[in-house]
Amino acid sequence: MAQPGHSWFVGGTVGPWQVCAMRTVVGEGLDAVPRLARLEEPPAPGAGWGLAGVSSHLRYTSRDERGELARLQEGLGRPWARRAALIPIRKSDAWWALAQDERLGIYRQSQHTAIGMGYLPAIARKLFHSRDLGEPFDFLTWFEFAAEDEPAFDALVERLRATVEWAHVTREVDIRLAWAG
Amino acid sequence: MAQPGHSWFVGGTVGPWQVCAMRTVVGEGLDAVPRLARLEEPPAPGAGWGLAGVSSHLRYTSRDERGELARLQEGLGRPWARRAALIPIRKSDAWWALAQDERLGIYRQSQHTAIGMGYLPAIARKLFHSRDLGEPFDFLTWFEFAAEDEPAFDALVERLRATVEWAHVTREVDIRLAWAG
Repeated sequence: MAQPGHSWFVGGTVGPWQVCAMRTVVGEGLDAVPRLARLEEPPAPGAGWGLAGVSSHLRYTSRDERGELARLQEGLGRPWARRAALIPIRKSDAWWALAQDERLGIYRQSQHTAIGMGYLPAIARKLFHSRDLGEPFDFLTWFEFAAEDEPAFDALVERLRATVEWAHVTREVDIRLAWAG
Repeated sequence: MAQPGHSWFVGGTVGPWQVCAMRTVVGEGLDAVPRLARLEEPPAPGAGWGLAGVSSHLRYTSRDERGELARLQEGLGRPWARRAALIPIRKSDAWWALAQDERLGIYRQSQHTAIGMGYLPAIARKLFHSRDLGEPFDFLTWFEFAAEDEPAFDALVERLRATVEWAHVTREVDIRLAWAG
């Protein structure tokens, strides 16, 4: 059943993105695959694993931050951004049982937005929400950058993983990709 | 495709809830039906209209409010609560384009939580999120109360509809039900 507005990331043997590395950061991994495709409809049965998400409204970003992000960030699909990463994440039940102000407090303490902002515009990013879709992960984040910016991207994700917020991450897989379309 | 954790409200000719009244408050209505069922799986084709939602984490409620709600509110299914209401709501694209602090500001200014709290424990309430599922409504709220509390419920929804927050509601249907199971 196709759902308007949903996106699928499909790991298998087809797709324009070549999988360069898959690393399970915490929790259960995903089957190793050689290729990844981004689809706007569910994958055919047997195509490999598929992760669905939806691009949704802002959950923690303030008006000021949104303005700053809009000024700094660039969209996906820049022709020279031939490296990408897909990082599916699940957070603990305890995290989701927190009230909005408690989650926002941890998010701000962790400087999540500020950390990401420091790597703009080089690292383009798009967040997909999965939790309410009954998916195995809560979020799928898709990043695109130039090959020479991969060390900066490594630094970005390591800084995020060192935050208090990341203590609530119970499953994370880091998938690195190169455009082969 | 059944989705774990999703709920369906199905308007048609079967189900334990008799539809007493359906009123389109704003925007497009829903087809009039005599019965309503709550399902944990998608309805069979031709069963009538079906609205899906997911019970999700708190979006605006603070820790203090959550504690107060937990202290005051009662669950669904109280045997004497033989009246119910289903109120599907959609908000404007402009609402969803607001940042989190802007939406929270309007929500607080409208005293949304405080208004609902004033009718506890008489009016039990459960919120289902639909927007990210690609549904026609953004929220489905289900209320249960005793027959003698229907005037109080009328007052509750009228107070909410008079708030600044409700200026962002572009579609709302008010469905009143009586237990006939």
